Amino acid sequence: MKALTRYLTFNIPSKMAFQNITPQVEEAVRASGVQEGLVLVNAMHITASVFINDNERGLHRDFVAWLEQLAPFNPDPNHYHHNRTGEDNADAHLKRQVMGREVVVAITKGKLDFGPWEQIFYGEFDGHRQKRVLVKVIGE
Amino acid sequence: MKALTRYLTFNIPSKMAFQNITPQVEEAVRASGVQEGLVLVNAMHITASVFINDNERGLHRDFVAWLEQLAPFNPDPNHYHHNRTGEDNADAHLKRQVMGREVVVAITKGKLDFGPWEQIFYGEFDGHRQKRVLVKVIGE
Amino acid sequence: MKALTRYLTFNIPSKMAFQNITPQVEEAVRASGVQEGLVLVNAMHITASVFINDNERGLHRDFVAWLEQLAPFNPDPNHYHHNRTGEDNADAHLKRQVMGREVVVAITKGKLDFGPWEQIFYGEFDGHRQKRVLVKVIGE
Repeated sequence: MKALTRYLTFNIPSKMAFQNITPQVEEAVRASGVQEGLVLVNAMHITASVFINDNERGLHRDFVAWLEQLAPFNPDPNHYHHNRTGEDNADAHLKRQVMGREVVVAITKGKLDFGPWEQIFYGEFDGHRQKRVLVKVIGE
Repeated sequence: MKALTRYLTFNIPSKMAFQNITPQVEEAVRASGVQEGLVLVNAMHITASVFINDNERGLHRDFVAWLEQLAPFNPDPNHYHHNRTGEDNADAHLKRQVMGREVVVAITKGKLDFGPWEQIFYGEFDGHRQKRVLVKVIGE
Repeated sequence: MKALTRYLTFNIPSKMAFQNITPQVEEAVRASGVQEGLVLVNAMHITASVFINDNERGLHRDFVAWLEQLAPFNPDPNHYHHNRTGEDNADAHLKRQVMGREVVVAITKGKLDFGPWEQIFYGEFDGHRQKRVLVKVIGE
C-alpha cells in the first residue's frame, strides 16, 4: 500500500469564498503513483469545508446567499451562545455543517474518477486567517 | 490490496426521487472478494446524492417537502444566479449539499457492516436525464 | 494491509445531545498499529450522526436550536408522513442529514491527522435507546 500526505494552505481575504482546488488534488494523486485507491480531502479547520459541486460563479453566489439565509452571521452573543466566548463566527461553524468537512474520491487508473462536472472546492466561512486542507492518498 | 470499480446508471423519470441501491452495492462487495476494507459510493453528478437513511416511503415524502422548503425550485434567473446560465436547476445543486455526495461504508468479514436500518439511496434532484453512481471497493 | 473494527455503544438520556468520542477513536487507531491509512467513524443508526466540529458547549447549544429550527420536532402524523408509521422521530432523520452520518480521518505517523480544533462527536437526535458507532481503521 502506498500513502501520500499533502497540506494545502489558504489565506482567503474575505469572510466567505470558494476556491477550486482540483488541480492541487490531481497533482497529489499523480505524485503518489497510486493507480487504484482513494483520496481523502478535508478542511483541517472547523469553519471551512471541502465539497464537490459545479465550477460556476453564479452558483457560488447562490451558495453564499443561501447559507447566509440558513445560518445568518450575527455577532450578538444573545443570538449565538458560541459568540459568548469572544468569537463572532458561530454562523461559520453551522455553514460548514451544511457544506461538509470532507470528500473521498476514487482513484481509477491513476486518475480522479470523476463525473463530467465534478470539481473540488475549498469553502471558507470565516476568512482573513491562515487555514489548511489535508490531502491523503492511499492505494496501490 | 484488492480494488473493484462499478458504475451504476440511472434515468429517473421525475425531477426528485430516491432509489434504494443497497443490493447493487452488496453485489459489488461480493464480486470484489474483499473481506476487510471500505466501499465508497458517490453520485458522479452534482445535482444528485448518495446517502444512508431509512427505507420508508413516508420519510422519503418528508425529505422531498423539507428539501423544497430549504431550497425551493425557482427557474427565475433573478432568484438564483446559476439560472442565468440557461439552467433551471440551481435548487438541485443546493439540495444535493444537504443530502451529501457520498457515503463510505465499512466491509467486515466480506459484508457491508451496517446497523439495523441502514440502507443506501440514490437521491435525484434534477431527473429526466442519464446519470451515474460510482462504487469503489478497496481492501483485502 | 491492516484492519481493525470497533463498536462503541451509547444510551443518551435525552432526545438530543453531542458527545466527544475523539479519545475512543484515538485508542482504536493506536490499537490497530496503523501508521499510514484512514479511519472511518460512522453512526450505525439513522437518527444519529458522527461529525467533526468544535468542543465548545455554547456551540452545541447553538446546534440544538438551529437544527430544531431547520427540522422541528413534530409528532403529528399530518406534519411528517414518517410519523404515520407510529414513530415520532421524522425530525431526527432530517437533522441527521444536516450533521452527516460519518467522518473519514487521515492517519499519519500513527496518529489522527487533525487541525488545531478538530474533535469527533457523536450526535444523538432521538435518544433514550441504545445505539452504536462503528470505527474502522485500514492502512499499514
